[in-house]
Amino acid sequence: MRINTLAIVGVGLIGGSIALAARRRSVAERIVGIDHEAETRSRALREGMLDEAHPELSAVAGADLVLFCTPVDRITAQVIEASAHCRPGTLLSDTGSTKAAILRDVSGRLPSSIEFIGSHPLAGSEKHGLANASAHLLEGRLVIVAPGPGSTDNALSRICDFWKDLGARVQVMGADEHDRALALTSHLPHLLSSALAVILPTEWYDLTATGFRDTTRLASGQPSLWSAIFRSNQAHLLGALGRLEEQLLSFRAALCQGDRAALERLLQQGKKIRDEIGERPA
Amino acid sequence: MRINTLAIVGVGLIGGSIALAARRRSVAERIVGIDHEAETRSRALREGMLDEAHPELSAVAGADLVLFCTPVDRITAQVIEASAHCRPGTLLSDTGSTKAAILRDVSGRLPSSIEFIGSHPLAGSEKHGLANASAHLLEGRLVIVAPGPGSTDNALSRICDFWKDLGARVQVMGADEHDRALALTSHLPHLLSSALAVILPTEWYDLTATGFRDTTRLASGQPSLWSAIFRSNQAHLLGALGRLEEQLLSFRAALCQGDRAALERLLQQGKKIRDEIGERPA
Repeated sequence: MRINTLAIVGVGLIGGSIALAARRRSVAERIVGIDHEAETRSRALREGMLDEAHPELSAVAGADLVLFCTPVDRITAQVIEASAHCRPGTLLSDTGSTKAAILRDVSGRLPSSIEFIGSHPLAGSEKHGLANASAHLLEGRLVIVAPGPGSTDNALSRICDFWKDLGARVQVMGADEHDRALALTSHLPHLLSSALAVILPTEWYDLTATGFRDTTRLASGQPSLWSAIFRSNQAHLLGALGRLEEQLLSFRAALCQGDRAALERLLQQGKKIRDEIGERPA
Repeated sequence: MRINTLAIVGVGLIGGSIALAARRRSVAERIVGIDHEAETRSRALREGMLDEAHPELSAVAGADLVLFCTPVDRITAQVIEASAHCRPGTLLSDTGSTKAAILRDVSGRLPSSIEFIGSHPLAGSEKHGLANASAHLLEGRLVIVAPGPGSTDNALSRICDFWKDLGARVQVMGADEHDRALALTSHLPHLLSSALAVILPTEWYDLTATGFRDTTRLASGQPSLWSAIFRSNQAHLLGALGRLEEQLLSFRAALCQGDRAALERLLQQGKKIRDEIGERPA
């Protein structure tokens, strides 16, 4: 066991999946969960995925590693509050979909012997909650680890090893680079998916096939989670949206002119890229 | 057997799936395929899905029902050419993704004893070709049947029965209404999927997870097929694109203002609709 006590704040889809994987792979001696929902706590205890479950953040005391698996607009405050209960040497990390704002807001506000390093497992789903958690959710998935300017090599290798022990692949990346990339690879697809779903009139529901459904699958995600992600990555998401709008203008121009060659060229570019990413691990 | 001879022009994903389903369900005594690719013809014969395979359209002679499963920009010319070889009473239909242009261009150009009624099985895929055909592709799927102004009740019920015999559900709809709806439920998702794929830089390929991949799955479709569909549904597709662009402007405004309530409201509308369509058969 690399870890004596692992504390997980927020035992939903991601937090629950981490607990299940940590148990299955014997990554931690003891797993403590913190969640404000009594039903979630009792379910997690009943199913044996946690050794202890508490509603208060003070229960992180004694943990070696504390993971915050809560919505991005709550992580900073929870990290700061929890750090006051931690013993020296405790490592804090999270699973939020944006990294720069959290790292910036936490910076300089932790006890000197406690480090926070950002993490983001690219393993979300439009589903949520402990009921959808799985010991296999992280297997083979990429976790991006974003250190802060003062992160030590020791803390960085501890968090990277933790994710690898859960079966994930790890890539270390700057927080701003992460946010710029994820604006395009994750947040923009969610926004588009939602925008497309919204314009569907009721009378055409039955005229949707797998194409519409796949393209809008993300729109079923939790609005409160995603509005927080969008707001915390505002500038990069606006930049990605701008690039998409330009691309739509190219399509509009080719379409208005009935320009077969231009339409085919645009579609060919999209196919080339989509076929290439389809050959890589998701 | 309702049909003595079924002729299928274009034995790819859709044409091949129709042949397989017709065989499996004993819908036709004899199935004749017309395809310009020698490899497709010999494979279809070898696997027993066709009784005869020919490269020339004249092979439709003797068929009771001829189905054109070719790209939308080729259907009209093939229907007109093939009709000269058909005996009186032959029913012609197609599987193209747009209906108004084909019905308009065919109108008045067929021998008086031969009818053309449009069909569109909502069962496409980003995959194509006979290798991906399946006897189950149409099962439970919706086929839209679009009669012309002069279609007889007899011809309409023959084509509707044919699709039901293959295991599909059938909805009769005007060609223009079909095209307006499909511009939004099928052609726009394809356009968006492609536009999103195009703006992904190579260095971020590995930062795409299931969300990006699902949202861009359609972009792997064949560019030549889809540019023809887009051009043949130009006005309605531009209309649908305009509605989407308006929705993106609403997101942009809410995002610029960091307006949490507005973002959540937009996402909530999308979720409501996506959750509702998720409960219906695809």
